[in-house]
Amino acid sequence: MSESAVPLMSARLGKGFSRELQEHLVGRMLDESRRMFYAYFAVDRAHTVMLAERGIITADQARQILRELERIEALGPDGFRTDPAYDSFLPQVERAMTERIGEDIAGRMHTGRSRIDHDAAVLRLHTRDQLLRVMDRLLDLQRSILRLAAEHVTTLMPGYTHLQHAQPVTLGHHLLAYAEMFARDRARFADCRRRLNLLPLGSGALAGSPYPLDREWVARELGFERVTANSMDAVSDRDFVAEFVFAAALTMVHISRLAEEIILWATPEFGFVHLQDAFSTGSSIMPQKKNPDPLELARGKSALAIGSLTSLLALLKGQALTYNRDLQEDKRPLFETADDLLLTLELLTEFLPGLRFDTERLLEQAGAGFSLATAVADYLVGKGMPFRKAHGVAGAIVRFCETEGRDLPQVRLEEYRRFSELFERDVYDILTIESALEARSGVPGSAAPSLVRAAAERILAETADA
Amino acid sequence: MSESAVPLMSARLGKGFSRELQEHLVGRMLDESRRMFYAYFAVDRAHTVMLAERGIITADQARQILRELERIEALGPDGFRTDPAYDSFLPQVERAMTERIGEDIAGRMHTGRSRIDHDAAVLRLHTRDQLLRVMDRLLDLQRSILRLAAEHVTTLMPGYTHLQHAQPVTLGHHLLAYAEMFARDRARFADCRRRLNLLPLGSGALAGSPYPLDREWVARELGFERVTANSMDAVSDRDFVAEFVFAAALTMVHISRLAEEIILWATPEFGFVHLQDAFSTGSSIMPQKKNPDPLELARGKSALAIGSLTSLLALLKGQALTYNRDLQEDKRPLFETADDLLLTLELLTEFLPGLRFDTERLLEQAGAGFSLATAVADYLVGKGMPFRKAHGVAGAIVRFCETEGRDLPQVRLEEYRRFSELFERDVYDILTIESALEARSGVPGSAAPSLVRAAAERILAETADA
Amino acid sequence: MSESAVPLMSARLGKGFSRELQEHLVGRMLDESRRMFYAYFAVDRAHTVMLAERGIITADQARQILRELERIEALGPDGFRTDPAYDSFLPQVERAMTERIGEDIAGRMHTGRSRIDHDAAVLRLHTRDQLLRVMDRLLDLQRSILRLAAEHVTTLMPGYTHLQHAQPVTLGHHLLAYAEMFARDRARFADCRRRLNLLPLGSGALAGSPYPLDREWVARELGFERVTANSMDAVSDRDFVAEFVFAAALTMVHISRLAEEIILWATPEFGFVHLQDAFSTGSSIMPQKKNPDPLELARGKSALAIGSLTSLLALLKGQALTYNRDLQEDKRPLFETADDLLLTLELLTEFLPGLRFDTERLLEQAGAGFSLATAVADYLVGKGMPFRKAHGVAGAIVRFCETEGRDLPQVRLEEYRRFSELFERDVYDILTIESALEARSGVPGSAAPSLVRAAAERILAETADA
Amino acid sequence: MSESAVPLMSARLGKGFSRELQEHLVGRMLDESRRMFYAYFAVDRAHTVMLAERGIITADQARQILRELERIEALGPDGFRTDPAYDSFLPQVERAMTERIGEDIAGRMHTGRSRIDHDAAVLRLHTRDQLLRVMDRLLDLQRSILRLAAEHVTTLMPGYTHLQHAQPVTLGHHLLAYAEMFARDRARFADCRRRLNLLPLGSGALAGSPYPLDREWVARELGFERVTANSMDAVSDRDFVAEFVFAAALTMVHISRLAEEIILWATPEFGFVHLQDAFSTGSSIMPQKKNPDPLELARGKSALAIGSLTSLLALLKGQALTYNRDLQEDKRPLFETADDLLLTLELLTEFLPGLRFDTERLLEQAGAGFSLATAVADYLVGKGMPFRKAHGVAGAIVRFCETEGRDLPQVRLEEYRRFSELFERDVYDILTIESALEARSGVPGSAAPSLVRAAAERILAETADA
Repeated sequence: MSESAVPLMSARLGKGFSRELQEHLVGRMLDESRRMFYAYFAVDRAHTVMLAERGIITADQARQILRELERIEALGPDGFRTDPAYDSFLPQVERAMTERIGEDIAGRMHTGRSRIDHDAAVLRLHTRDQLLRVMDRLLDLQRSILRLAAEHVTTLMPGYTHLQHAQPVTLGHHLLAYAEMFARDRARFADCRRRLNLLPLGSGALAGSPYPLDREWVARELGFERVTANSMDAVSDRDFVAEFVFAAALTMVHISRLAEEIILWATPEFGFVHLQDAFSTGSSIMPQKKNPDPLELARGKSALAIGSLTSLLALLKGQALTYNRDLQEDKRPLFETADDLLLTLELLTEFLPGLRFDTERLLEQAGAGFSLATAVADYLVGKGMPFRKAHGVAGAIVRFCETEGRDLPQVRLEEYRRFSELFERDVYDILTIESALEARSGVPGSAAPSLVRAAAERILAETADA
Repeated sequence: MSESAVPLMSARLGKGFSRELQEHLVGRMLDESRRMFYAYFAVDRAHTVMLAERGIITADQARQILRELERIEALGPDGFRTDPAYDSFLPQVERAMTERIGEDIAGRMHTGRSRIDHDAAVLRLHTRDQLLRVMDRLLDLQRSILRLAAEHVTTLMPGYTHLQHAQPVTLGHHLLAYAEMFARDRARFADCRRRLNLLPLGSGALAGSPYPLDREWVARELGFERVTANSMDAVSDRDFVAEFVFAAALTMVHISRLAEEIILWATPEFGFVHLQDAFSTGSSIMPQKKNPDPLELARGKSALAIGSLTSLLALLKGQALTYNRDLQEDKRPLFETADDLLLTLELLTEFLPGLRFDTERLLEQAGAGFSLATAVADYLVGKGMPFRKAHGVAGAIVRFCETEGRDLPQVRLEEYRRFSELFERDVYDILTIESALEARSGVPGSAAPSLVRAAAERILAETADA
Repeated sequence: MSESAVPLMSARLGKGFSRELQEHLVGRMLDESRRMFYAYFAVDRAHTVMLAERGIITADQARQILRELERIEALGPDGFRTDPAYDSFLPQVERAMTERIGEDIAGRMHTGRSRIDHDAAVLRLHTRDQLLRVMDRLLDLQRSILRLAAEHVTTLMPGYTHLQHAQPVTLGHHLLAYAEMFARDRARFADCRRRLNLLPLGSGALAGSPYPLDREWVARELGFERVTANSMDAVSDRDFVAEFVFAAALTMVHISRLAEEIILWATPEFGFVHLQDAFSTGSSIMPQKKNPDPLELARGKSALAIGSLTSLLALLKGQALTYNRDLQEDKRPLFETADDLLLTLELLTEFLPGLRFDTERLLEQAGAGFSLATAVADYLVGKGMPFRKAHGVAGAIVRFCETEGRDLPQVRLEEYRRFSELFERDVYDILTIESALEARSGVPGSAAPSLVRAAAERILAETADA
Repeated sequence: MSESAVPLMSARLGKGFSRELQEHLVGRMLDESRRMFYAYFAVDRAHTVMLAERGIITADQARQILRELERIEALGPDGFRTDPAYDSFLPQVERAMTERIGEDIAGRMHTGRSRIDHDAAVLRLHTRDQLLRVMDRLLDLQRSILRLAAEHVTTLMPGYTHLQHAQPVTLGHHLLAYAEMFARDRARFADCRRRLNLLPLGSGALAGSPYPLDREWVARELGFERVTANSMDAVSDRDFVAEFVFAAALTMVHISRLAEEIILWATPEFGFVHLQDAFSTGSSIMPQKKNPDPLELARGKSALAIGSLTSLLALLKGQALTYNRDLQEDKRPLFETADDLLLTLELLTEFLPGLRFDTERLLEQAGAGFSLATAVADYLVGKGMPFRKAHGVAGAIVRFCETEGRDLPQVRLEEYRRFSELFERDVYDILTIESALEARSGVPGSAAPSLVRAAAERILAETADA
């Protein structure tokens, strides 16, 4: 082992442990580094250029280092051969470089920084990349939903409270509720990005740096908005991880609600939607059985995201400043949640267009169960009856219908008038689901098809701009 | 029971249950309503005025309703007598009003809304009030920290990684790390407020409203930025609760870190800080024992906040649209977390000024353990030695000192030069903690006292504006 | 304030805090003490008798103390007037006693113990009482399920995987799955009780006691199985709280599954079960709407229990020995989870007998969707065809039926034989749901009605013994 | 693709998804299967033998299948080549077998079972193996602690409450507190094993089996205690996973407490213990710096275990019976928690013997802070003074000492007698830490060295038997 190995090795767990344990620990750290491969090189490159600009190393030294960085990066995360004697990509890259251009040059790249602020910078850069991918895929999912909603602006279906029929709505309106949720999710990721997008490099191990570093230049070069303001906070701050995972967990919770609904709609009993073979699993023996596995996996993964958030907050709780090795354990919940979210967004985006809604079945159920009873009450209020009284009268009419085995449009005017003299012929105008829905067109946010169409177009325009 | 009681009772759990269970369930709902007392009246008032403006009720009806609302609100949350026959403040208020002005008037207040959008509006209003109080108290806490930091801009102390001495910092710099955390927390609450601050009223039970409601007017009147965009989302959205509780949990986690540190600093072994009797518990028999109970409670409460967030996300996961009664269970985690956070912020704000730091002990520990070793390495790099080599040399010098039982400033120049000919007399200029720290003044965010002073002033100015 | 107040006050948070904060903190501690009222007196009584037996106090002193304890306990948790100067029932009771029999006697009750081991003993005793109540109510719920299962041993219904029809089962078999879950839950509580049921009193603040206490006697007197083995562990151990809350959370998760299913079954689309008015909430205007609120609350409360468990584990994580004030925060998650679980068990036990299953609808759905396809495959295997091949043939027959618009029993023998010559007339014997089910009677645990009946009787017998 | 591939493929996600998504999903399932490699073969073997015993397949068919199973198992988890067309080891093994012995034989192995009960059996078997390994390593850790405790039965150190000095204890006593915790942990795993150790095979997809399976024989063969009692419960029960992860999380919480303490003890300020180079990470430049990384990792991993438990409970909450694909997501939290726990137990077991305690420093701190004040109070109680009064007197003496700058043994008898005439010469007998501790030898569980020695021996004997 070369002499330089000693300092490089410094943060590696000691030799007292069994070889098996050491390999396990190092192996995991290298796997985690590998995931952030490109972020490592971006940070190394910017730092090197800045060191030369500031005269901390010479232009020639910088050139040699940059050439080597380029060469190693080109090997890619899988092509780059690691040495089991070193535990993360920081010493691995320096080692590989030292072999070719000697320690006198390679050893200068790390001037003015520590493992700790370097790791923090790499983690932020990597997380930002993941976050941007998530925002893109959220947009894809939203477009997928909007297209479906646009097809079903006027498709009537029952609206539920307590999973019981409450009032009819349209499928388009129902789907747009999810577009709203995912829009909030995107906004949360955007807020997270603002707070994440600061450069910690230059904070040293915890106390800053005595070298004349140009942190602002490095920040700009790496696309960070500004530099972190306090070195001790900068090296121990993982708020951006917790906030990313929270935004992800809430997005997954929204997805779990959508998944739950489609799973219900696809049961034989609901029969609202048909899954296509190509997007479900089946049974060799019951060919008509189509299991909504992608939705069940999505729902299941939402539980994992919740647990990852728990892990992170419990991890950070009660940690004294500044860096403690506990922080290495932030990676698994972060990486897994990002992976799961990206995968799930893709799954859903591919899955949704394959749904075939049974609009007749939806219509049939939309009209079931005296769903126009509130329209009757509203009619009476419109004629001047106090709200509570109108509700009482409408309830009495429904009970009458139940006894008679009739539905509201089948009640004759004279019968209506037995309940209240305010009823006139125009009551039948409101006794269709369509009229009941369109009567809501004056109040923003309502389920009236005209509003739904406008909303779908508005959101589509917004997502087009994004 | 009056006839009108029937509709009012409608959402009350049925009579099949034992009296004990019924009382328990109603009692809890009333307690929760009581906490949101003023929000109830604000919403009722704005809705009533709007109904009259839009001609849905007459000006005279509105006047009578408003007069009654004023009368009942004046009774206050504890003075308002509830009736065990009704389960929330919505029917309670209507019942109380009906007794005095009759159902024909009182029963009109609820026109154009449902329990569900009404509850959603009340909950948002109440949560916004809590959020604003939290932001205020966070500001108080930050000021408390800033004052302490300003006193200790030049107070030297050891800086830690892995809870081992790494490099000296100043206490002011250390405390400002927390000012950064709390600034991020305030920003998160501000972001949460934007997303929360929308009016759901007018969404009806789930499908919107056929009445010509002026939702925008009500929104403005209640200080909401705009109205919600989709009625089905609006009645089932509890993102704002989850987001508030996440922001609170992360704030509590930051507080737990500060608490942990002061608890350590107050141990006899650290001896960095003395708690005052007035802010701790003691032992009658060991008068010198001062237990940091407020900090331990704060640390403990951070665990409860994490669990509350877990509860909320698990609650929302997999819920089909729209309203389900599960949502009633969002109140306990929300209310308890808000209470705990407000209490803890107040506790800390009162507690911090009572701390008495032992600056001599801090200084003594700041200088312990060859804390200037990195300064020696940086000196050599400044003279042109490659970074890795300089680290190796400095390490060798430290080992020499250990063997000799000396500290770095006690090493003679000729001895230094035995390790490297780059050493000159000016090496002694950097061999004080003060110079080592001030050498960092060129890099933003570093622990140099001049930077710390500027940072304290900047944040103080920001919090003054807030 | 009497002189003796000083030592009594010792563990009270200092006077530096605002009156409001102090009142809040003390108020909450008193509320928590009040919940454990009877446990306080049980512990005080046993300790006092033992002190006298061991000659640490005189028989006369003991008699006076016991008389006062009896008097105060008789006031009950609501009748006992507390003094805002003291923060828990330990000093409150001593104060009340001192007023009547003087400090010279009253002050001896606390001999040989500390607040810390005393609190630990009270908490264990109280938790044990809650645990025993939970076990009783779990038994009630199981009986409720068993009665329902016994009624429906032969009621056919579809069995689901992926919420799609898989194979027919009986409702009785389905319900007994829950009886199994709740039996495991009871076993977990029983295991928890064994580990909980140790006496920590006599551990002092952390180091044990120099008085000749008879811990074993006190343990027996209070129904504890033995004394704790290590004083430092004893005063800081809250495993029993975590374990109780875990057992409760898992029970609540089981309840949430049952709740979810009945909610689905009660939708108009499933139509498997009718809720009675007396056990649901309704709508004044849609009298046929019956909302399954108790089930939704149960499902929601399961989320709270999960969060409480998270809180407790995060609370305990990383705590240095021995007692830290953080531990006070174990009470809220413990008490709330116990309350919620007891309430939910009672809700369900009262609710289940009110369910009215629509056995015709269940039967209709049980037979839908080629549910006998696997029976056809099994028939072929019975005739010697390899399993995989038999599945392929059965699948082909189902596809044939789909094309023809027929169901399996309607396929003629010659048609069957076109798919395989192994088919004979006896194939029609297995083409009823009943025969398909009863064919399973040879394998324990299967859905065959004869097995289900036996299982219901076995569990009923077990619960009768309990 | 062979014809038989179709049924084998049946549970594979459809072709509608992008190739990338499909590969990702299949890849993960195969990785998870690979971990349970040996459990797959154990289950297949037992099932095959039983099928032959019951005459469901012929002896010759069984022989051929068993020979192939043996051959494939011998390839090991890494040697067995999987086919991307199949998603788990169930079809993979059948495919590999079909290639050599044809579908007519290979296809019979799956007779009388479904993927669902098969997966459940494999998961239980694998979890049981993990559980037994955990119990073994817990025993190793306990022995490690006991050896350390035995070395330090009489090593005095300060005992803490609120992380403040309370009363002296011995290091042996302190360490045995952890032996108690780990003993409870082992008991919890043992309880979990009992509930886990049931065979679900024979439950089919959900309704049991029409084949004359001998479930009891298979159960015995695989070391299960008995068969599960209800087929619907058996295929959807994951209680054993939740219970295992709870037991693991609580064990990790105990480990986190031990880790936290040693981290504190290793700070320069405490200076109670020295880490060896071989078991810590260091700094190349500050050779005396030894970072307790293994302990920090252990503490961090405890947070992950808490989150995994959250994930599992949130996953199970609200799932309708029976199998849903969500359940696939139970594997990650289970596997990761088991891995982390096993790794951490090993880390600690190797780490603890490397600790070097500074017994002089411990003794010095044990005696600091009037740690004998309670002994003085107890002395007075022994002479007949009421407890509260004695505490007041002792407190007054301590305040006198503080003013005088003296410690309790330095107070002269006449001075003592100024506080109370009960003081006699024998007061000096109790004014050593040793006597104060040994005075506790009469009360079980106390910190008296004689008791500690006995306790260490008792537990060592227990662990030897285990």
